[in-house]
Amino acid sequence: MTTTDRITLYYAPQSRATGARVLLEELGAPYDLQVLNMKAGEQRKPAYLAINPLGKVPAVHHRGALVTEQVAIFIYLADLFPQAGLTPALDDARRGPYLRWIAYYGSSFEPALIDRFMKREPAPVTQSPYADFDTMLGALESQLARGPYLFGGQITAADILWGIALNWTMMFGLVPRTDVFVRYAERIAARPAFQRISAADDEIAAAHAAAAGV
Amino acid sequence: MTTTDRITLYYAPQSRATGARVLLEELGAPYDLQVLNMKAGEQRKPAYLAINPLGKVPAVHHRGALVTEQVAIFIYLADLFPQAGLTPALDDARRGPYLRWIAYYGSSFEPALIDRFMKREPAPVTQSPYADFDTMLGALESQLARGPYLFGGQITAADILWGIALNWTMMFGLVPRTDVFVRYAERIAARPAFQRISAADDEIAAAHAAAAGV
Repeated sequence: MTTTDRITLYYAPQSRATGARVLLEELGAPYDLQVLNMKAGEQRKPAYLAINPLGKVPAVHHRGALVTEQVAIFIYLADLFPQAGLTPALDDARRGPYLRWIAYYGSSFEPALIDRFMKREPAPVTQSPYADFDTMLGALESQLARGPYLFGGQITAADILWGIALNWTMMFGLVPRTDVFVRYAERIAARPAFQRISAADDEIAAAHAAAAGV
Repeated sequence: MTTTDRITLYYAPQSRATGARVLLEELGAPYDLQVLNMKAGEQRKPAYLAINPLGKVPAVHHRGALVTEQVAIFIYLADLFPQAGLTPALDDARRGPYLRWIAYYGSSFEPALIDRFMKREPAPVTQSPYADFDTMLGALESQLARGPYLFGGQITAADILWGIALNWTMMFGLVPRTDVFVRYAERIAARPAFQRISAADDEIAAAHAAAAGV
């Protein structure tokens, strides 16, 4: 596999893309950033919409192909670098649960978060992809309560995704600061990769704010 | 890999689980069904909530592990049976786009469908996971317009997912019957596996209706 081909990450600081960048750092992947100034709305301008019509980051360009969707990006990138030890192999018994909890982020957690953010009820339980907010979050908390990571003692790319997602959503008051969530999120946030990218994000965000004359 | 270990599929006819069953047939996988009577609310009863707390089907049990979420189940099952030719390998240039379009189903398409079904506006574009309904669907249609399949001439598991999803959502009037969607959905629905499972679904659904005294 030509994993030495550099990866391009379409990026904005302090966004969903932060998780993808932290993952690239954890994987030791060779990558370049294409930074979008979301405060200036660059993610909604034609240049970026030609790349991802939904105007979302992250997006990844690698070996001539575009990958969008946080869930796909995490699975794809982690599989590129098995030597980093963050990816259960295809024949690992944890492979199915690993995919389950990464997919859960996009199909269950995010829809529930959006409904909460919008202060609206979930769809009726027969239609809702996540039952109700407390049930959705309770299932995640039960899995994390085993600790220290989603699948016990060994960290995977799924933990990078969830640790960062929980840090953000607890900061914004969308997810309650239970002991299980706080300790887990702190465990991921204490890692050098997260520390490094958080500091870098602060710098980029400050530069964007300065460019906007804030 | 012990792919000869039988797969258990928690199932309900004419539900999201239909796609997972068709995929198992396309893969030639050895599987057993655990059928839930959703008309009798079995997916919300303790026996099933102990398996999947969200009360959703499909769910898959394999090699001692549980896999939920349609997106995870498709990626997982297809990777178990590479000999079926429906799965781009980890080093295939289509692997990233393959994961992208499967993840798109759970993270962008379903949230948009739910909003449409509920007759409510999407979240503001800076929060929405799918921009707006027409943009979300337009991106999919552009990809499918190349045809005959998502990635050109060779069908993958992603086409099984989308072909069945489009059949259903067009039937319910949630997705417009454009030429591109209709021809694509018909192409998947014409396959023997889909025909076989549709007939089997009709029988199970009739038995459930009879049990309910309808």
